Amino acid sequence: MNVAIILFTDFETLDVFGPVEIFGQLSDQYTLTFYSLTGGMISNHHGVSIATKRLDPTNYSADILFIPGGKGTREEVDNSALIKAIKTAAEHSEYVLTVCTGSALLAKTRLLDGKHATTNKKAFHWAVSQGANVQWNKHTRWVVDGKYYTSAGVSAGMDMTLGFISDQYGNSCARAIANHIEYRWIEDKNSDTFKVE
Amino acid sequence: MNVAIILFTDFETLDVFGPVEIFGQLSDQYTLTFYSLTGGMISNHHGVSIATKRLDPTNYSADILFIPGGKGTREEVDNSALIKAIKTAAEHSEYVLTVCTGSALLAKTRLLDGKHATTNKKAFHWAVSQGANVQWNKHTRWVVDGKYYTSAGVSAGMDMTLGFISDQYGNSCARAIANHIEYRWIEDKNSDTFKVE
Repeated sequence: MNVAIILFTDFETLDVFGPVEIFGQLSDQYTLTFYSLTGGMISNHHGVSIATKRLDPTNYSADILFIPGGKGTREEVDNSALIKAIKTAAEHSEYVLTVCTGSALLAKTRLLDGKHATTNKKAFHWAVSQGANVQWNKHTRWVVDGKYYTSAGVSAGMDMTLGFISDQYGNSCARAIANHIEYRWIEDKNSDTFKVE
Repeated sequence: MNVAIILFTDFETLDVFGPVEIFGQLSDQYTLTFYSLTGGMISNHHGVSIATKRLDPTNYSADILFIPGGKGTREEVDNSALIKAIKTAAEHSEYVLTVCTGSALLAKTRLLDGKHATTNKKAFHWAVSQGANVQWNKHTRWVVDGKYYTSAGVSAGMDMTLGFISDQYGNSCARAIANHIEYRWIEDKNSDTFKVE
């Protein structure tokens, strides 16, 4: 399956690269490609500068759309070109995964309306304000509603990605990946000790 | 403090970006810069392509040297120019942190001789073979010996980096960062459930 990872200025580092590490362990199953609205180098506040291809919604062919969060989402929720591109890409994807405030970007497309979802605990109220008709869940590590997987903040994206792989290839496959990268996977999506403030 | 992150082809994604996320939470304390031996774009097997500056050992001024692992280390241990550059940078750094098989690169400089260190559980015997005079520890999440911090595989680098910050700024600071990124920090460096095979 082709995974399209959408980047924008000031994406959150680990939102992206935790899941990339996990998908990358199944390189025979997943091909990862980084996209942005403009293409070219995309940078963030951690000094990370990553090469991306231009996201062309008229020529989109990925199976999985992956949307990280980060402080850049505060501006990007008002970037109608990006939201429109995400909407088209999401409609043409078999699965859509978001981490942290990436769910606010997805909520702005209205595709989450009526669906269950979650987001970053530290930016919960702001994210909720981007999707008044979403059934937001504040006590969960990640949420699955149909083809939409949304996770809580930053590190929760790794647990969700392992959960996604477990749903696709079985629990033992996900556990083997976690063991290989020496990661203590929180397997239960409802095992969430972090609080909305 | 300036943190110099050394990249090479086929570095392990999360070895780098887990710690980057954590250092990045203290942007008033740490400035992160990515280096490689040649400078320019450095790519890995997960499709990540990142901009780097050229590491010039004659003009090195970082306080912390950070060395990730990854399958690229299998070749890089025989790259005498890289090992020499790492040795000079390490000698001029206040602290040196390695993740995963990054400790094999550091071991090749001989700077770890006689010191306690650890490495990836899945590549333990190979890493050990790169430093016969290192006191390798196979039952630990990370090891501190003087200015050298070495961690076990991939995800252990996040726990070590939080441990480093705890040593510098106190446990409550490290816990606050873990809470902010919704990460279940393994605080005890001896709490290691992964096995050498």
